Amino acid sequence: MRVGIVGLGLIGGSLARRLSARGHEVVAWNHRPHPYEQAERDGIRCVATLAQLAEAAPDVIVLCNPLKAMPAVLAELKPSLDAHPETTLTDVGSVKGMVRDQVMAAGLGERYVGAHPMAGNELSGWSAADPALYDGALWALTVDQTTEYQRFLAVARLITDGVGNRIIVLDDTTHDRAAALISHMPHVVATALINELTGNPDRNIAAALAAGSWRDMTRVALTDPERTRAMVEEDAANVEELLRHMAAHLTAMANELRTGFVAGDGDERSKQTIRDFFAEGQPFRDYKAARAAGVAGISGMLTIPVDGWQQALLDSARRGEQILRLTGDRSAETTRVAL
Amino acid sequence: MRVGIVGLGLIGGSLARRLSARGHEVVAWNHRPHPYEQAERDGIRCVATLAQLAEAAPDVIVLCNPLKAMPAVLAELKPSLDAHPETTLTDVGSVKGMVRDQVMAAGLGERYVGAHPMAGNELSGWSAADPALYDGALWALTVDQTTEYQRFLAVARLITDGVGNRIIVLDDTTHDRAAALISHMPHVVATALINELTGNPDRNIAAALAAGSWRDMTRVALTDPERTRAMVEEDAANVEELLRHMAAHLTAMANELRTGFVAGDGDERSKQTIRDFFAEGQPFRDYKAARAAGVAGISGMLTIPVDGWQQALLDSARRGEQILRLTGDRSAETTRVAL
Repeated sequence: MRVGIVGLGLIGGSLARRLSARGHEVVAWNHRPHPYEQAERDGIRCVATLAQLAEAAPDVIVLCNPLKAMPAVLAELKPSLDAHPETTLTDVGSVKGMVRDQVMAAGLGERYVGAHPMAGNELSGWSAADPALYDGALWALTVDQTTEYQRFLAVARLITDGVGNRIIVLDDTTHDRAAALISHMPHVVATALINELTGNPDRNIAAALAAGSWRDMTRVALTDPERTRAMVEEDAANVEELLRHMAAHLTAMANELRTGFVAGDGDERSKQTIRDFFAEGQPFRDYKAARAAGVAGISGMLTIPVDGWQQALLDSARRGEQILRLTGDRSAETTRVAL
Repeated sequence: MRVGIVGLGLIGGSLARRLSARGHEVVAWNHRPHPYEQAERDGIRCVATLAQLAEAAPDVIVLCNPLKAMPAVLAELKPSLDAHPETTLTDVGSVKGMVRDQVMAAGLGERYVGAHPMAGNELSGWSAADPALYDGALWALTVDQTTEYQRFLAVARLITDGVGNRIIVLDDTTHDRAAALISHMPHVVATALINELTGNPDRNIAAALAAGSWRDMTRVALTDPERTRAMVEEDAANVEELLRHMAAHLTAMANELRTGFVAGDGDERSKQTIRDFFAEGQPFRDYKAARAAGVAGISGMLTIPVDGWQQALLDSARRGEQILRLTGDRSAETTRVAL
C-alpha cells in the first residue's frame, strides 16, 4: 500500500514512521523541510510540494496538517489530484463535520472518508513523533450517504492492516457530538474550575489544600488554552448544548443540597435524589472496572450489507462493537465492550 | 512525645506507623483488634478500650475514626479524659466545622484543635497503611477564638517535628470553603460528567472515543460514590454555593458560544469573552508550571503575636505561606508559594 502523509507533526510523523516500519511505502510532505533528513532515514520519501505528493499517486492521502491550514492544503492538492482519481483522501481532524465541509468546498468530497485516531499526548511536532503513539489505538471513521464503499474499504484497511488499529464507523454528527461529550465540553469544565480558583480571594489556601482530585480534574486546563479554545469553537453547537445540560444538572444538585441538608431539617425526597445522582453513573464505573480488570471484549463477526451499510456500521458502533479487521469486502471481525 | 491514635485505618494506621518509626511513643485503639498484632510489631502499643487510651495520658490524641463514628467515640473518651486535662485532642477529618461542633457538643471543645492532612489515596484500611503516605504532606490546622495557644502549639509541633510535615492555620469556615472548591464540588462535577455519558444513547460510542482528558476528569467519580456523597453532604452549604457558580459560568459560556459561533456570523464581543475565559486561569497555569519546574518557595520567618494570633496565621496562609517548623513559641520558619 502506498500512503501519502501531509504534515509530519506528532500525529502525522508518528503515523508515517509506523507505516514505514510496518513495510508500507510512505510519501510525505511537510510545510517546512526540517524533519526530512530524519524521515528519509526512516524510509519515508519526502517531497517538496503537495503537487509532487499527489503525483506519487498514493492509494490514500492522510491529511495530518492543522485544521486551520486545511483550505489552503486542499486547494493546492486539487489540480494534481484531478489526474489521479484512484487516490482516496482522509484526515485525522478531531472535528469531522467541518473537515467534510472544507473537503466538499474544495471539490474533493467524492473521494473523502473522515478519520480521527484516538491517539496523542501533550507533546507536538516531528521531534515527538513515535510509532508507538498508535499502539492499541481506536480510530473513528466517518462516512455519509454519498461515500463510495471502495473508498471506505481503502481507509479501513489502511488503519486495520496498515496501522494495526481498531475502527468504529460513524456519521460526522454522531462523532462530533460524542467528541463534545468526552472531550470538548469537559475541557471547558476544567477551565471553569481553574478560573473559579484563580478568582477566589482564598486562592493560595485552596491551591495549598489541592490534592489528587483537583490535580486530575484540572490537568487538561493546563494544556495550551489557545488549542483548547480552537477545539471548542470548532464544535461550538455541541459544546453549547452539553454545557447547558451540565449547568442544569449542577443547579439541580445545588437545589437538592439546599432542601436536603442546608435548609431546616432536610427534605427526605432531596436526600433520595442525591443518592440517585451518585448511583446513576454506576454502569460507567462497572465498565471501567471491567476494562481495568482486563475483561476481554466479546468476539463477533459483522456482515456489512450493500444497502444501508453506513447505518449498519453506525448501529454496530452503538452496540459497542469495534472492528478488528475486514475478513472480506463485506465482513469484519469485531470485539464488543459495552456499557 | 506520647501520641494516642484512634482508628488504625489508612490515615490513622499510616500516622501511627510513621510516628513510631520516628521515635515517638504511640498508643492506639481500633474498633476491631485485627491490626493489633502487626501494629505491636511496629512498636505501637495497642489498647482494648478508648478509656485505656485516655488513661495512657497522651500529649495529643488524634481522632482518625470515620466522621460518622465521632459522636460515639467522643462520648466514650469523655469520662476518662476528664482525669487528664493535659491531653490535647485533634482529628484528621476532611470537614472541620462539623467536627468542632461534635467535639463541643461532647464537652471537649476547650482542648480541641482541628487538623486535616492533605494525604491519602484510593485505598483504605490498615493493610494499606504506609508511613510514606505522609511524605511531603501539608496539614491544615483549624482554630477559633477560644483555642488555647498551648494546645495549638502541641498539635503544630506534633505535625512539624513529629510527623515531619508542613502546616497552614485556618478557621473552620475558610477550610471548609477551600476544601469545597478544590475537592467536594469537583467530585460532584466529575459525577455529573459520568452521568451525562451513562444517560446518553450514544454512550458506547462516547466511551470508545474517550481518551486522556475524559479519564483524568472522571477518575474521582470512579471511587466509592457513597464516600463521595457523605463528603459532599457534610459540606453541603459550600458545595451548593460553588455548584451555582459553576452552573452560572457554564451557562455564560454556552451563551457566548451561541452568539459567537453557532448563530449567524458570530458576535465579536462574544469571541473576546471566550478568549478571556480561556486566559483567566493563567495564574494557576503559571503556578503549576513553576511547581513542576521545581521552583522553590520563598523562605521567611513569621512572628506570631499574642493578641490576634489566629488572624495573623490566617493572613499568613492567605499570602501562600506554609509553616515548616516552629523556631520558638512565637516564631516560625515559613516557605511561600503563591498564585
